[in-house]
Amino acid sequence: MIKARVTVTLKNGVLDPQGKAIEGALGALGFDGVGHVRQGKVFDLELQTDDRTKAESDLKAMCDKLLANTVIEDYSIHIA
Amino acid sequence: MIKARVTVTLKNGVLDPQGKAIEGALGALGFDGVGHVRQGKVFDLELQTDDRTKAESDLKAMCDKLLANTVIEDYSIHIA
Repeated sequence: MIKARVTVTLKNGVLDPQGKAIEGALGALGFDGVGHVRQGKVFDLELQTDDRTKAESDLKAMCDKLLANTVIEDYSIHIA
Repeated sequence: MIKARVTVTLKNGVLDPQGKAIEGALGALGFDGVGHVRQGKVFDLELQTDDRTKAESDLKAMCDKLLANTVIEDYSIHIA
Protein backbone atom coordinates (compact mmCIF):
# COMPACT_ATOMS: atom_id res chain seq x y z
CA MET A 1 0.00 0.00 0.00
CA ILE A 2 1.19 3.47 -0.88
CA LYS A 3 0.29 6.58 1.09
CA ALA A 4 0.32 9.84 -0.78
CA ARG A 5 -0.37 13.47 0.02
CA VAL A 6 -1.67 15.80 -2.67
CA THR A 7 -1.48 19.54 -1.98
CA VAL A 8 -3.62 21.87 -4.08
CA THR A 9 -2.94 25.60 -3.95
CA LEU A 10 -4.23 28.57 -5.90
CA LYS A 11 -1.97 29.78 -8.69
CA ASN A 12 -0.20 33.08 -8.18
CA GLY A 13 -2.37 35.96 -9.24
CA VAL A 14 -5.64 34.21 -8.50
CA LEU A 15 -7.61 36.14 -5.89
CA ASP A 16 -7.98 34.33 -2.57
CA PRO A 17 -10.76 35.97 -0.53
CA GLN A 18 -10.59 33.24 2.10
CA GLY A 19 -6.88 33.89 2.61
CA LYS A 20 -7.56 37.63 2.83
CA ALA A 21 -10.22 37.04 5.47
CA ILE A 22 -7.80 34.92 7.53
CA GLU A 23 -5.16 37.65 7.16
CA GLY A 24 -7.64 40.19 8.52
CA ALA A 25 -8.75 37.90 11.34
CA LEU A 26 -5.15 37.22 12.44
CA GLY A 27 -4.51 40.98 12.52
CA ALA A 28 -7.67 41.51 14.58
CA LEU A 29 -6.49 38.82 17.03
CA GLY A 30 -3.32 40.85 17.63
CA PHE A 31 -0.84 38.95 15.46
CA ASP A 32 1.35 41.66 13.96
CA GLY A 33 3.47 41.28 10.88
CA VAL A 34 1.38 38.70 9.11
CA GLY A 35 1.84 39.21 5.38
CA HIS A 36 0.06 37.34 2.64
CA VAL A 37 -2.01 34.33 3.61
CA ARG A 38 -3.15 31.84 0.97
CA GLN A 39 -5.37 28.87 1.65
CA GLY A 40 -5.22 25.55 -0.14
CA LYS A 41 -6.37 21.98 0.23
CA VAL A 42 -4.63 18.78 1.12
CA PHE A 43 -5.71 15.22 0.34
CA ASP A 44 -4.28 12.14 2.05
CA LEU A 45 -4.87 9.06 -0.07
CA GLU A 46 -4.14 5.37 0.32
CA LEU A 47 -3.56 3.41 -2.88
CA GLN A 48 -3.74 -0.41 -2.95
CA THR A 49 -0.61 -0.86 -5.04
CA ASP A 50 3.12 -1.12 -4.51
CA ASP A 51 4.05 0.27 -7.91
CA ARG A 52 5.23 3.82 -7.25
CA THR A 53 5.40 4.73 -10.94
CA LYS A 54 1.80 3.67 -11.53
CA ALA A 55 0.75 5.39 -8.31
CA GLU A 56 2.32 8.64 -9.43
CA SER A 57 0.69 8.59 -12.86
CA ASP A 58 -2.67 7.65 -11.29
CA LEU A 59 -2.37 10.51 -8.81
CA LYS A 60 -1.59 12.97 -11.60
CA ALA A 61 -4.68 11.80 -13.48
CA MET A 62 -6.80 12.13 -10.30
CA CYS A 63 -5.57 15.70 -9.83
CA ASP A 64 -6.28 16.64 -13.44
CA LYS A 65 -9.73 15.06 -13.43
CA LEU A 66 -11.08 15.70 -9.95
CA LEU A 67 -8.89 16.99 -7.17
CA ALA A 68 -7.65 20.24 -8.70
CA ASN A 69 -9.06 22.83 -11.05
CA THR A 70 -5.93 23.27 -13.15
CA VAL A 71 -7.18 26.54 -14.63
CA ILE A 72 -6.71 28.29 -11.28
CA GLU A 73 -4.91 25.74 -9.10
CA ASP A 74 -1.52 24.06 -8.92
CA TYR A 75 -0.98 20.68 -7.33
CA SER A 76 1.97 18.82 -5.89
CA ILE A 77 2.17 15.12 -5.15
CA HIS A 78 4.22 13.63 -2.36
CA ILE A 79 4.43 9.85 -2.09
CA ALA A 80 5.41 8.67 1.38
CA MET B 1 10.64 37.48 6.07
CA ILE B 2 9.70 33.94 6.97
CA LYS B 3 7.45 31.74 4.86
CA ALA B 4 5.55 29.02 6.63
CA ARG B 5 3.10 26.32 5.68
CA VAL B 6 0.52 25.11 8.17
CA THR B 7 -1.27 21.85 7.42
CA VAL B 8 -4.49 21.10 9.26
CA THR B 9 -5.91 17.59 9.10
CA LEU B 10 -8.76 15.82 10.84
CA LYS B 11 -7.77 13.66 13.79
CA ASN B 12 -8.00 9.91 13.36
CA GLY B 13 -11.48 8.67 14.15
CA VAL B 14 -13.22 11.89 13.16
CA LEU B 15 -15.67 11.25 10.32
CA ASP B 16 -14.71 12.91 7.03
CA PRO B 17 -17.76 12.95 4.72
CA GLN B 18 -15.90 15.10 2.17
CA GLY B 19 -13.10 12.55 1.99
CA LYS B 20 -15.66 9.75 1.62
CA ALA B 21 -17.32 11.61 -1.25
CA ILE B 22 -13.98 12.05 -3.02
CA GLU B 23 -13.26 8.34 -2.49
CA GLY B 24 -16.58 7.49 -4.15
CA ALA B 25 -16.03 9.94 -6.99
CA LEU B 26 -12.56 8.56 -7.73
CA GLY B 27 -14.02 5.05 -7.87
CA ALA B 28 -16.78 6.24 -10.21
CA LEU B 29 -14.12 7.81 -12.46
CA GLY B 30 -12.50 4.40 -12.82
CA PHE B 31 -9.59 4.70 -10.41
CA ASP B 32 -9.36 1.28 -8.79
CA GLY B 33 -7.65 0.52 -5.54
CA VAL B 34 -8.17 3.87 -3.88
CA GLY B 35 -8.40 3.28 -0.14
CA HIS B 36 -9.13 5.89 2.48
CA VAL B 37 -9.16 9.53 1.42
CA ARG B 38 -9.02 12.30 4.00
CA GLN B 39 -9.21 15.98 3.21
CA GLY B 40 -7.46 18.74 5.09
CA LYS B 41 -6.48 22.37 4.72
CA VAL B 42 -3.23 24.10 4.08
CA PHE B 43 -2.29 27.70 4.85
CA ASP B 44 0.72 29.49 3.36
CA LEU B 45 1.70 32.45 5.49
CA GLU B 46 4.34 35.16 5.26
CA LEU B 47 5.59 36.58 8.54
CA GLN B 48 7.48 39.89 8.70
CA THR B 49 10.17 38.67 11.05
CA ASP B 50 13.48 36.86 10.87
CA ASP B 51 13.20 35.28 14.31
CA ARG B 52 12.33 31.64 13.66
CA THR B 53 11.65 30.86 17.33
CA LYS B 54 9.14 33.71 17.63
CA ALA B 55 7.64 32.76 14.27
CA GLU B 56 7.11 29.20 15.46
CA SER B 57 5.47 30.21 18.73
CA ASP B 58 3.29 32.76 16.88
CA LEU B 59 2.23 30.13 14.37
CA LYS B 60 1.31 27.71 17.17
CA ALA B 61 -0.83 30.40 18.78
CA MET B 62 -2.48 31.18 15.41
CA CYS B 63 -3.34 27.51 14.97
CA ASP B 64 -4.75 27.18 18.47
CA LYS B 65 -6.81 30.37 18.20
CA LEU B 66 -7.96 30.47 14.59
CA LEU B 67 -6.56 28.11 11.99
CA ALA B 68 -7.41 24.77 13.54
CA ASN B 69 -10.19 23.40 15.69
CA THR B 70 -7.99 21.41 18.05
CA VAL B 71 -10.92 19.35 19.32
CA ILE B 72 -11.17 17.53 15.99
CA GLU B 73 -8.10 18.66 14.05
CA ASP B 74 -4.34 18.25 14.23
CA TYR B 75 -1.94 20.77 12.76
CA SER B 76 1.65 20.71 11.64
CA ILE B 77 3.88 23.70 11.02
CA HIS B 78 6.65 23.79 8.47
CA ILE B 79 8.89 26.85 8.31
CA ALA B 80 10.65 27.22 4.97
